[in-house]
Amino acid sequence: MSVVQMVKIVGLGAVALTLSVEWLGWLFCRLWPRKISRGPLKEVFFFPTEVACTERLFTPNSPFPCPCPLPHNINTSFTRLLVHILSASSSLDLCVFAFTNLDLSRAVLALHTRGIPIRILTDMDYTLITGSQIGAIRRAGICVRCDSGAVHMHHKFAVVDGRRLITGSLNWTLTAIQSNKENILVTEEPDLVLPFISEFQRLWDVNDPARRHLLSIAEKPASTIERQRNTEKCLYGQ
Amino acid sequence: MSVVQMVKIVGLGAVALTLSVEWLGWLFCRLWPRKISRGPLKEVFFFPTEVACTERLFTPNSPFPCPCPLPHNINTSFTRLLVHILSASSSLDLCVFAFTNLDLSRAVLALHTRGIPIRILTDMDYTLITGSQIGAIRRAGICVRCDSGAVHMHHKFAVVDGRRLITGSLNWTLTAIQSNKENILVTEEPDLVLPFISEFQRLWDVNDPARRHLLSIAEKPASTIERQRNTEKCLYGQ
Repeated sequence: MSVVQMVKIVGLGAVALTLSVEWLGWLFCRLWPRKISRGPLKEVFFFPTEVACTERLFTPNSPFPCPCPLPHNINTSFTRLLVHILSASSSLDLCVFAFTNLDLSRAVLALHTRGIPIRILTDMDYTLITGSQIGAIRRAGICVRCDSGAVHMHHKFAVVDGRRLITGSLNWTLTAIQSNKENILVTEEPDLVLPFISEFQRLWDVNDPARRHLLSIAEKPASTIERQRNTEKCLYGQ
Repeated sequence: MSVVQMVKIVGLGAVALTLSVEWLGWLFCRLWPRKISRGPLKEVFFFPTEVACTERLFTPNSPFPCPCPLPHNINTSFTRLLVHILSASSSLDLCVFAFTNLDLSRAVLALHTRGIPIRILTDMDYTLITGSQIGAIRRAGICVRCDSGAVHMHHKFAVVDGRRLITGSLNWTLTAIQSNKENILVTEEPDLVLPFISEFQRLWDVNDPARRHLLSIAEKPASTIERQRNTEKCLYGQ
């Protein structure tokens, strides 16, 4: 068999292989559309969620089973949310209106203990509500900035490792998780994640305490002293 | 040239073409990743938004320019939200905690006038707030169901034509649109849209007034008469 013939046969073989793979892929997608992973991570979960023990997520290597009376080793919307938060390996940017949930606070503190950089943006007024975890988080040394410019900093999103977006209607409170009807959407789709990363950075810069302090000196009239006091409470600890 | 030779040449040509197209596609994606439309619609926008005239969205064929003093013909986060709502051609399913915004109410009523089936699920307590549009919408003949089972029905999502999801932190109120820091995410990604469609249908069925009425007769003690009254106010008009 000459070289030319060999090249032609290999060529025809390659065509047949390419077309077969394309066709098989198409057929597979048509027959089992839900089994094919279509691009980046996309998940949705709804609340309220069943109450379950979350101890195993925080101490996965513990040899002792948790003795609490709650159901163990079940997946709920809340455990899935915690898994996504705890999966952070390089950064966590959190922009949340109300933050009172103890498990989520524990997750953030666990990441901080692991040395993962964390930035938290929250609503100034809502740092003062009963049970707010912002004080404890700030005292642990995590960088928190408070938004006081809007009526409410009403976002509820987090960006994990600069690529995974967690967003929805859910505030980080016990009522939201166990009582309200809420939703959470998790995605790594760049077209959806990148705008949130930009918006976080913009809000982070706008709410730089140094910048705001300068603005407040230049602009604020005497009548806003009470608001100024609240800002300082929020900026420098409750 | 024999038939066999012809087949071989065509085969080689097909290989070359296939590989070239694959390679060019890959190269284009690498060089201009943001210019390639990657699958279904994906959009994100943030609030607060600039205040602009929305008249042209409701009366696109009017020969008279709107005389109002607001800026005209500019795209804002809010006009984009309105465009998505008004794009409905076969259905609108709306699941929203608070609904007081007049422009969004006008958009829903405009769709109803066009004969588009609309279903609205909302929080029972929040139908009673000042400026709630739920009463006007119900009086126009649009089907509304109120959730009274949870502490709050806190969702803020809509599904347009059974394929376009609009979700985020934004309630349908003027404060949310013009004052708060909020986000809206719009997508036609099936993996994200389908769970919301299922959840809407589940909540819609759960909050069927007939079903709830039977349950309330069977279960509710006399001490909940006040709540029952509120439910009825919500179900049968304010």
